[in-house]
Amino acid sequence: MTQFLSTAPYKGTRDFLPAEMSVRTQVFSKLYAVIESYGFERYDGPLLEPVELYEAKSGSELVNEQLFTLTDQGGRRLALRPEMTPSVARMIAANAPQLAFPARWYSHPNCHRYERPQKGRVREHWQINVDVFGSESLEAEVEIFELIHDMLCSLGAKPSQYEIRANDRVLAHSALRTYARIPDESLGKVMRVLDRWEKYPRDVVLKQLGELGLDSASITACEELTAKDFAGICAVAAPEDVAKSRLATILNSGMTNAAVRFDPLIVRGLDYYTSTVFEVFDTNPENRRSIFGGGRYDNLTALFSKQRIPGIGFGMGDVTLMDFLSGHGLAPAPNAGAQVVVLPLSPATRTPLKEAAARLRRAGLRVTTPHEDTQLGKELKKADKCGAKVAVIIGEDELARGKLVVRDLRRSTQREVAREDITAAVLAVLEHVD
Amino acid sequence: MTQFLSTAPYKGTRDFLPAEMSVRTQVFSKLYAVIESYGFERYDGPLLEPVELYEAKSGSELVNEQLFTLTDQGGRRLALRPEMTPSVARMIAANAPQLAFPARWYSHPNCHRYERPQKGRVREHWQINVDVFGSESLEAEVEIFELIHDMLCSLGAKPSQYEIRANDRVLAHSALRTYARIPDESLGKVMRVLDRWEKYPRDVVLKQLGELGLDSASITACEELTAKDFAGICAVAAPEDVAKSRLATILNSGMTNAAVRFDPLIVRGLDYYTSTVFEVFDTNPENRRSIFGGGRYDNLTALFSKQRIPGIGFGMGDVTLMDFLSGHGLAPAPNAGAQVVVLPLSPATRTPLKEAAARLRRAGLRVTTPHEDTQLGKELKKADKCGAKVAVIIGEDELARGKLVVRDLRRSTQREVAREDITAAVLAVLEHVD
Repeated sequence: MTQFLSTAPYKGTRDFLPAEMSVRTQVFSKLYAVIESYGFERYDGPLLEPVELYEAKSGSELVNEQLFTLTDQGGRRLALRPEMTPSVARMIAANAPQLAFPARWYSHPNCHRYERPQKGRVREHWQINVDVFGSESLEAEVEIFELIHDMLCSLGAKPSQYEIRANDRVLAHSALRTYARIPDESLGKVMRVLDRWEKYPRDVVLKQLGELGLDSASITACEELTAKDFAGICAVAAPEDVAKSRLATILNSGMTNAAVRFDPLIVRGLDYYTSTVFEVFDTNPENRRSIFGGGRYDNLTALFSKQRIPGIGFGMGDVTLMDFLSGHGLAPAPNAGAQVVVLPLSPATRTPLKEAAARLRRAGLRVTTPHEDTQLGKELKKADKCGAKVAVIIGEDELARGKLVVRDLRRSTQREVAREDITAAVLAVLEHVD
Repeated sequence: MTQFLSTAPYKGTRDFLPAEMSVRTQVFSKLYAVIESYGFERYDGPLLEPVELYEAKSGSELVNEQLFTLTDQGGRRLALRPEMTPSVARMIAANAPQLAFPARWYSHPNCHRYERPQKGRVREHWQINVDVFGSESLEAEVEIFELIHDMLCSLGAKPSQYEIRANDRVLAHSALRTYARIPDESLGKVMRVLDRWEKYPRDVVLKQLGELGLDSASITACEELTAKDFAGICAVAAPEDVAKSRLATILNSGMTNAAVRFDPLIVRGLDYYTSTVFEVFDTNPENRRSIFGGGRYDNLTALFSKQRIPGIGFGMGDVTLMDFLSGHGLAPAPNAGAQVVVLPLSPATRTPLKEAAARLRRAGLRVTTPHEDTQLGKELKKADKCGAKVAVIIGEDELARGKLVVRDLRRSTQREVAREDITAAVLAVLEHVD
C-alpha cells in the first residue's frame, strides 16, 4: 500500500489559499499605501542571517528558545530571521555614507520563531516593519504614533477600538532605581519580570521578583509602581531623568495628535530598546492583547560601526492584526478570481474568444476562458459559483452579425452587443454589481 | 577594541535597498496584473516544509546538494523550500474537494538553494510561480505560453528578445528508445546528461553518456538526436508516441498565438515533469541562457492522495529576469521616496504643516515633513537630492493671509496658493514634471 505524505503545513505555519491570501493582500496593500504616503521607502533583506546578529542584542529568550538555526555546508551558523530590526540596522550601517537621514524605511518580511502554536502565535508570520533612522528628534516618535493611527484608520478601525500604550525605559529605570532601590545591574531582569504583570497571577510575579534577590520593601515598591499613573511615575523618578525622558516630554507638551496613553507596564521583550517603547492594544474585551509594538533603539548600529545612528520603529505581524480586524468585523471580504468568463459555443469560435478575452484583459479586467468545450449551462453555473459577475458568450450566429452576448450572471439577464463595444458593456454590468 | 559584526548579507543572498526594491516592486507589480488578468489567484505557503516533500520527486541533485535543512526542537527534519511546486501540489491535494477546476493559482515566494554564487545564481531568490491544476486540455499549455508572452510584453520586451523553447518528455523518451535504443530505466539519466549539451564541451557529454553504459552506436544516435528538428524527431519516434505527445499536437495544429520553438535539448532538471517542458531564453548574444522554465507534471499530487490532479506551470526567478531586462535596457528606473516635502519656516507652523501634509497624503501623494527646524535652503537642497519634486513652504506671514507657498523644485519657481487649493497646485506641478 502506498504511504501518502501529509498535506498539512508544518506545525505553526500556514497555507494561504486564494481567499485568505486575497484578504491578506487587501489589508497590507492599504497599509503599504499609508506608509508610503509618509515617504517611507520599501526595502528587503535575506531570510538567513548569521546567528551572531541576534546573540548581541535581541535577548536570551529569543536566541536560546525561539531561533530556528542551521549550519550551512561551509560551516556558517545561520538563523531564520526572527525579526527584521537587526537586519535593517545592518543595512543602514552598511550604507550610511550614501543615505540621506532621516531615512524612512519599511519592509514586509516573513519571520520565524519557534513558539508553541496558540491563538495569535505562529512559527512563521508576515510582519510589516517601519523604521526611521538618523533622527534624534521627538518628532520621530510623533510621526510613528500618527502613522500608526492612520494605518489602523485606513483599515476601518475607530480610535476607540485600539490604544497606543507607551512607556520610556529611561523613566521606568529611574523610578525602579529611586523608588524601589533596584541596582543598575538588575534593572533589565526586573523589567522583564514586570512585563508579565498582566499575564501571570500576582503571587507568581512577586515570587519571581524575590528570586531575583529583591527584598520585601523593593518588591512592594515595584508593585506600587505598576499601579502609578504618568504623574505618579514622574513624581518618584529622578527629576533629571524625567527631563531626559522623551515620552514624558512628548506627553507633557501635547506634541502629538495621536492618542497615546502612558502605561508603566509596557516594557517590550527585546534588549535593544533604549527609551521610548510602546504597544498597540485591542480594546475588544475578548481580545485584550497587544496587537504589535516597537520603540526607540539608539545603539543597534553600534554592532557594526562606530557611527551612531539612532532608530525608532515597530513591527506589525499579520496574525495579531487579523485577529484584531476580525474581532471588530473589519476583515475585508475575499476578492480575487475572475470577474468575467468568455465562453465559446463551438470550437470554431476559439479565435474570436481569444480576441475578446485579450481586449477585456487590456482594460484591466480579470478574465478566464474554459479549456474544454463543455455545456453552456454548466459553465455559467460554475462561473457564478466562482464569483464571476459577467459571461461573454460567443456563438457562430452572433459572430456572423458582428455581435457577442454579454450576460449579467447575478441578474440572469443578457444582451447582444457589437464586438467593439464589448469592454464598455462588461464594465457597465460590473459597475451595476458593485 | 570592539569587534564589529560584518554588514555584508550572507553569501549568495541580497539586501534590497529602496532603489533596488523599487525596481523589483515595479517589475513584479506589472507581472501580478497580467497574471491576474488571466484569472489566476494568488496564494502563499510556508517557507519550511518537511524534507520528504522534495525527496520524493524533485531529483537527487536538488535534495542532496542544494537543500538547506534543519531539525526543529521536536526532531522534525525540515527544508527551506527550494521551489514552490511541491508545496502548491500539497495544498491543491489538501483542498481538492472544495476547489473548482481548473484552478489557476500563482504565488511569489522566496526560495533557497545552496548554490555556488555566480552570475544568475544566488541562494535566495524571489520566484513567481504560475500553475493551472486540473486541466488535461492542450488549451492549458496554450494559455501558459500566451500568458508568458503577455507577461514579458508588459515589461516592454519584444518577441525578438526572447524565445520559448519546448520539448515533450513523451516524444524525447520515444526517440531515445526507438532511435538510440536506450532502455526505459536509463531514460532519466540519459536525459539529464543531454541537458548539459549546450553547457559542457562535446567530449565531456559523450564521455558521461559512456559512463552510463551506452555503447558507441547509442552514443552516436543520441548526438544525432540533439541536432534534429521537430519533424526529424517526430520521424524517428514511435508514431503512437507522436500522437500522444501534447507538444507535437499543439505545434502541428498551430493552436497557439505565442511563438514556441521545438528544441530537443530542453529537458528540465526536475524529476516530476511528465510531458510538456519548456524554457524561455534570452536572445541577447551576451546572455544566451534560460531565463525561466516549467512544464506539465501530471502525477505530483499522487504523493498525497489517490486523486489524480494534473498540473502545468512555471517558476520565474527575479535574478535571471532582471538580468534579461537589464541586458535589453528594460529595467525601470527606481521610483520610491517622497514626491512632496512640507517645510515649516518656524516652530509655530507645525500644526498647519501637519494639516497640509495630511491633506496631500489623502490625495495619494508621498509626503514627508522634517523632524528638525533647519534652514530652508538646506532642506530644499536635500529634498531635491532625495528626488522630491515639490516643496510646500509654510510661513507665518503667508498663513496669516490664508496662503501657502508651492515650489517646483526642478524649475526653482514658486507661487502662493490658498490653503484649500494646495492639493490641486501640487498635482499641477507633478503633472508638469512627469
